[in-house]
Amino acid sequence: MERLVMKFGGSSLKDLEKIKSASDIILEKSKTEEVVVVVSAMGDSTNELLDMAHALSTTPSKRELDMLVSTGENKSAALLAIHLNEAGHKAVALTGFQAGFQSDGVHGKNKITDVNIERIENHLRQNEIVVVTGFQGINPLGDITTFGRGGSDTSAVALAVKLNAKCAIYTDVSGIYSIDPRIYSDAKKLNVVTYEELMEMAHLGTKVIEPRSVELAYKFNVPMEILLNDGKTKGTKVLEAYDMEDTKLTSVSKLDDVVLVIIHDTKDVNISNIFLELAKENVNVDIISHTRLNDRKEVTFTSEKSSIEDTKRVLTELNLDYEIKDNLSKVSIVGTAMRSQVGIAAQVFELFVKEDIFFYEISTSEISISYVVDSKIADDVVIKLGKHFEL
Amino acid sequence: MERLVMKFGGSSLKDLEKIKSASDIILEKSKTEEVVVVVSAMGDSTNELLDMAHALSTTPSKRELDMLVSTGENKSAALLAIHLNEAGHKAVALTGFQAGFQSDGVHGKNKITDVNIERIENHLRQNEIVVVTGFQGINPLGDITTFGRGGSDTSAVALAVKLNAKCAIYTDVSGIYSIDPRIYSDAKKLNVVTYEELMEMAHLGTKVIEPRSVELAYKFNVPMEILLNDGKTKGTKVLEAYDMEDTKLTSVSKLDDVVLVIIHDTKDVNISNIFLELAKENVNVDIISHTRLNDRKEVTFTSEKSSIEDTKRVLTELNLDYEIKDNLSKVSIVGTAMRSQVGIAAQVFELFVKEDIFFYEISTSEISISYVVDSKIADDVVIKLGKHFEL
Repeated sequence: MERLVMKFGGSSLKDLEKIKSASDIILEKSKTEEVVVVVSAMGDSTNELLDMAHALSTTPSKRELDMLVSTGENKSAALLAIHLNEAGHKAVALTGFQAGFQSDGVHGKNKITDVNIERIENHLRQNEIVVVTGFQGINPLGDITTFGRGGSDTSAVALAVKLNAKCAIYTDVSGIYSIDPRIYSDAKKLNVVTYEELMEMAHLGTKVIEPRSVELAYKFNVPMEILLNDGKTKGTKVLEAYDMEDTKLTSVSKLDDVVLVIIHDTKDVNISNIFLELAKENVNVDIISHTRLNDRKEVTFTSEKSSIEDTKRVLTELNLDYEIKDNLSKVSIVGTAMRSQVGIAAQVFELFVKEDIFFYEISTSEISISYVVDSKIADDVVIKLGKHFEL
Repeated sequence: MERLVMKFGGSSLKDLEKIKSASDIILEKSKTEEVVVVVSAMGDSTNELLDMAHALSTTPSKRELDMLVSTGENKSAALLAIHLNEAGHKAVALTGFQAGFQSDGVHGKNKITDVNIERIENHLRQNEIVVVTGFQGINPLGDITTFGRGGSDTSAVALAVKLNAKCAIYTDVSGIYSIDPRIYSDAKKLNVVTYEELMEMAHLGTKVIEPRSVELAYKFNVPMEILLNDGKTKGTKVLEAYDMEDTKLTSVSKLDDVVLVIIHDTKDVNISNIFLELAKENVNVDIISHTRLNDRKEVTFTSEKSSIEDTKRVLTELNLDYEIKDNLSKVSIVGTAMRSQVGIAAQVFELFVKEDIFFYEISTSEISISYVVDSKIADDVVIKLGKHFEL
């Protein structure tokens, strides 16, 4: 039998009815494959736990936050295994540490170092469906850790790598769209997408999947599919490359809660030191630009709204003269087509001039171009790009 | 510094405000003692989790039930540690397995085999308050186990034994009463009680504390106190023995949900076999009586309502002719005084005849007498006994 890792997110397990539907899809697959299931916490329960912690403390201790939120996946995994057993297929629920997820790093943002799959293999040999808590592991001290936002996707792909399995990500959308259908209702669902494109799209705001997980799948060439949690609708398959002739643009993504930090007059400052200190505080720095006017130097970078407090503290400690602009969004167009088609950037510039769209920053990669714009016009920019490139 | 294990039950942690109050009491104690805290799940959350499991399955797999309900204590321990840290005292939350609780037995009814306190000792050396999840441990397979009803009390006492600490049990009543004040409003609070009496009272229906935990405290002579969760009211201290002259009766307890099982005509049946089979199904058998009339034999025993289904299955498989009577309660009077005072049973018989009280079974121990009566008259019997013995 082939092996399949099935990942169900919070919205696909949000109540007991959803757990029963997930159970049906799993039982169907288990007829033809050896199945390991990775689960997130039910619905919005992780945020509810975080709200309780923040009601008790302005800066809750991160070690205990990990212990707290890990209860969410333990609960959904146990309930799903209970229902699978009831429905007639032997199933066993494993926590992160029982499933062998070893990790290291900062609490709340741990990285998986290895997965010791011995116990999972034992259960599979006994013809059991193994339900594993996503998002969590254990560190060398024996403490419970979590893998940061969307960590369950990464758990699923890491397991697929170690178990030599395919990976199916079940969500509440029917696959990957060229543009978020909530912004642009004419958006097309993609039957296939490449790992590289999906990685860019995920980094650039497509919330269906966590970019780290796509990167891992790409690195180990894990066959991957993103599907609706109804067990019927055809999803989006992730491929290594398209057929040679197929070279169109793939998608437009939007990422909200972007902030722009401008540091004035940095002539006496060691710039690498700024980014080193920001990295120590786990501030994600995205687009960096550096301008020199006469003998003045100015550095700007974009970051996430959630890092504003950490950013301010670092810059203040470094005695820098800075300002922060928020309510920004990053709109990106993605597609391997950019490699072979010249002039995409030029077409966008032309469009922006014609439509009088103002952007703060621009950033390009081999297969994407991103523009930082005011959040209030971001949806409109997405729609205009979608129409222009017929996505 | 002396060491203190403080146990907070579900009602003492039922919401964020209660967690803050518990935190205040703990911080006050931590000024003069090394403190380890044992917590139950918040409020009624264990039952809510069990309800979800039963909505998904008529007989939820017991291993997964343990994993499910253990999330309750993980949540309360993490939240309490988060608040202690916020309030300025370093604190760390440990799950059952991190705190070294080793266990063995049947899922849902595990027994503690040992507590490896190395990690707790490390945290105490670093002047941290250690918050430990009660009720749960790990078995030799690495699975999460729970210790059955009231298991958090047993966790607390077991830790006190290993840490050579005193043990304070915080509850929502202000100590141990001679009679449940909800039944008999004139009941007196006891300043002291002996381990033996408290053990009998707990077995016989006093719900404030779990009998296993008192047994353990008695065996290892752990100084123990039962207190109100307000941090002010004087509680009830548990002693090895009273002063010589102090020989009154201590309490009247009531235990509801008792069932009486009557097995007719057992002349061809190996009776020990019946109880062996019941024990295999973890049916708790309490009062057993055996009557022989001519060549007919009849066996009766009392058990718990929750075991009715298991009991029926065993007796039916053994082809026995039986009937079950439910809606019964067991009313018990307890006191080491019984050892030295004769005629307590005689006084009760006289009272029951005078008041026309019918009982189904009677059972005596060295320091208690129990009567099985219809539940609908049980409270009235408790009050009459309380008045008669001036409790």
